[in-house]
Amino acid sequence: MTVRNALYAQSGGMTAVINASACGVIEAARLHPEVIGKVFAARHGTLGVLREELFDTGPIRRGELIGLRQTPGGAFGSCRFDLDDPADNPAQYDRLFAVLAAHDIGFVFLNGGNGSMQTALQVDREAAVRGYPLQVIGIPKTVDNDIVEADCCPGYGSAIKYLAASVREASIDMASMSSRRGRVFVVEVMGRNAGWLAAGCGLAADTADAPPHLIVLPEVAYDEGRFLAAVTDWVERIGWCTVVVAEGVRGTDGRPLAQAASDGKYVQLGGAGAVVSHRIQAALGFKVHCAVTDYLQRSARHLASATDDAQAWAVGAAAVGAAVAGQSGVTTAVERLSDAPYCWRVGTTPLASVANLERHLPAEFIRDDGLHVSDAFMRWARPLIAGESIPAFLDGLPRYWRHELGLEPAKLAPYSGLGRI
Amino acid sequence: MTVRNALYAQSGGMTAVINASACGVIEAARLHPEVIGKVFAARHGTLGVLREELFDTGPIRRGELIGLRQTPGGAFGSCRFDLDDPADNPAQYDRLFAVLAAHDIGFVFLNGGNGSMQTALQVDREAAVRGYPLQVIGIPKTVDNDIVEADCCPGYGSAIKYLAASVREASIDMASMSSRRGRVFVVEVMGRNAGWLAAGCGLAADTADAPPHLIVLPEVAYDEGRFLAAVTDWVERIGWCTVVVAEGVRGTDGRPLAQAASDGKYVQLGGAGAVVSHRIQAALGFKVHCAVTDYLQRSARHLASATDDAQAWAVGAAAVGAAVAGQSGVTTAVERLSDAPYCWRVGTTPLASVANLERHLPAEFIRDDGLHVSDAFMRWARPLIAGESIPAFLDGLPRYWRHELGLEPAKLAPYSGLGRI
Repeated sequence: MTVRNALYAQSGGMTAVINASACGVIEAARLHPEVIGKVFAARHGTLGVLREELFDTGPIRRGELIGLRQTPGGAFGSCRFDLDDPADNPAQYDRLFAVLAAHDIGFVFLNGGNGSMQTALQVDREAAVRGYPLQVIGIPKTVDNDIVEADCCPGYGSAIKYLAASVREASIDMASMSSRRGRVFVVEVMGRNAGWLAAGCGLAADTADAPPHLIVLPEVAYDEGRFLAAVTDWVERIGWCTVVVAEGVRGTDGRPLAQAASDGKYVQLGGAGAVVSHRIQAALGFKVHCAVTDYLQRSARHLASATDDAQAWAVGAAAVGAAVAGQSGVTTAVERLSDAPYCWRVGTTPLASVANLERHLPAEFIRDDGLHVSDAFMRWARPLIAGESIPAFLDGLPRYWRHELGLEPAKLAPYSGLGRI
Repeated sequence: MTVRNALYAQSGGMTAVINASACGVIEAARLHPEVIGKVFAARHGTLGVLREELFDTGPIRRGELIGLRQTPGGAFGSCRFDLDDPADNPAQYDRLFAVLAAHDIGFVFLNGGNGSMQTALQVDREAAVRGYPLQVIGIPKTVDNDIVEADCCPGYGSAIKYLAASVREASIDMASMSSRRGRVFVVEVMGRNAGWLAAGCGLAADTADAPPHLIVLPEVAYDEGRFLAAVTDWVERIGWCTVVVAEGVRGTDGRPLAQAASDGKYVQLGGAGAVVSHRIQAALGFKVHCAVTDYLQRSARHLASATDDAQAWAVGAAAVGAAVAGQSGVTTAVERLSDAPYCWRVGTTPLASVANLERHLPAEFIRDDGLHVSDAFMRWARPLIAGESIPAFLDGLPRYWRHELGLEPAKLAPYSGLGRI
């Protein structure tokens, strides 16, 4: 068998454990020198491929891989840039395959979410059209947990472990205080269209009355009257309540409660928590505090889930396994074998059945009144946060890894096809 | 020597380690049965004293004290209620001393911040006036670190450990992404008048160029032109930047940038981060994300500083020591003996020299341009976050303690003097 090089690229928004997937790829590839030569990592994902900005991961020592695995964010850089359709922009693919050929790349591992799976699918198909021998394997990653055909997505378990712990802690603080007025704590979490992150906060509730008391999901139209009545109920009962709000919550008219800014293709939402807080304060007169977790929830590696970390590593390593086994046009995916004990394995799914689709919270994971999660969700989600993967600390803070790799010397002329991106 | 009972009360806003101080009091008192009988904990602080709502901590077993020590928030409840001046409201003190006498309380340990120290001072003085034999000892607690006459305040170290770790993590995420537009991450932290928490985020920066890049402090008037120029500088240099904003930042006209709501005596600020974010976006066109840490920063026990936890315990235990030694009208306080190696001890300070005073960031802790901290601050603050005090976990989440103590049977008639509080 001919030995060819591999290309690994990180894509889309980051997670606390995406670098564990990078580790999985690098470590598994090193076990197969008969198939895979160098493992290049693209700088800033697909942008780096087009720009021919590649790092050779070969000099990363085994010990450094520990640091890489414990570091949040994308160690090699990511981007929110998806390739065009080959029919619309063949020149983009001319460039792409020129870069792959120049570096004798026979394997592409694209570590991303729904959009990245579409890019991977296009590259896989175009390679066949062009007769370029290439195996393309997707590696799932997203805190949003919205990739279809998988039980869960690496990155999600750590995000909800952090969020549920934070909701529990802040709620204990809330419960400590005494006040003549009702008090409400609102926490806004990510989730444009799918409420997986908001739902995960439900794990904080270890009894029926425990916080969070209300979860406002994008899957359920925000009915202000019903919501405020539910807040009032809780405050009358225990004096306070904790509310989780997904950033993408929409009113009964289908419009987002708040829309901070629009950035072309990607709508950057934000402010749903502030809107809900303001409404509670104005309509009910309660004292409201609002936390917005924003990037903190997807980068809190200091409280990563050991299960999530293991799965992130495994989907990376399994991608190499799939490549070595001759597969292409597939993505690795976490499959659940059983709830209790929680058993899982990594399988593969055709990219075509995953690309650009979005997985919403199923109805059976939402409580009947639409304002919390169901027991079925709790059973499903609880194993995903099991175990604490604590990073190394130095001087009181997590010590994270930065690579010091130089870019591979370019073999092609600079690429001008990206314009101002 | 006569054995008399002690009263412990938590007061003001909570911290991640205030219960370690409770533990210190309870554990130290149990070592002195020749002086201290029962240790009562007031439910919701001074309110609980006036209402005669007292828990006997005697039934808390040694093993449970581990759980208590690892739990954030106030296990016995707190309040934002300070006693009136004795001259203005003698009836309030009639009630207070009736409760103390009814339960044979000879020691009061008040665990709070500036305002609580004033309350402790008033009780101490009034006891002398009334000839009631009482020793009153303050125990410092505040994430704001604004108590004078102390090197640092328990609660602060854990808050800035969490904040600095979060800033570091979110900034790694920021650095991963590629974007044609400049990108700014804003994180809003607590701090009405003093910038200690915002300053503590500076610990995330382990090199001169590392985030946070700018820290907007309440001690420095917010000059928008200079600030936006600094943001632009960073974005031009590295493509993005991280900005920490204290909630209480004021403009050059002295007015807070944002004021969410006013709650009588305590002004509940909030929104400074949103205001700054909006200005960056509007004036510079950058893409801005904003996190608001709110209660999360003062309750994140999952990432408590082991040093802070040890100091919180010690100021509690030392308060008992001071009481046993016959002191009254003092507060315990952390004193620094040396920076490196970091050596500290707990001393006592007269309540009169502490009460109602507020300690701001000294000028030598602020960088000359007013937009970051100085090296002197970094040297001072670094030891406070040393060591990780990780709580017990169950099912993937911190397992926190709740007491199941019943209230002591009341010996007095119900108190009506609190009105609607």
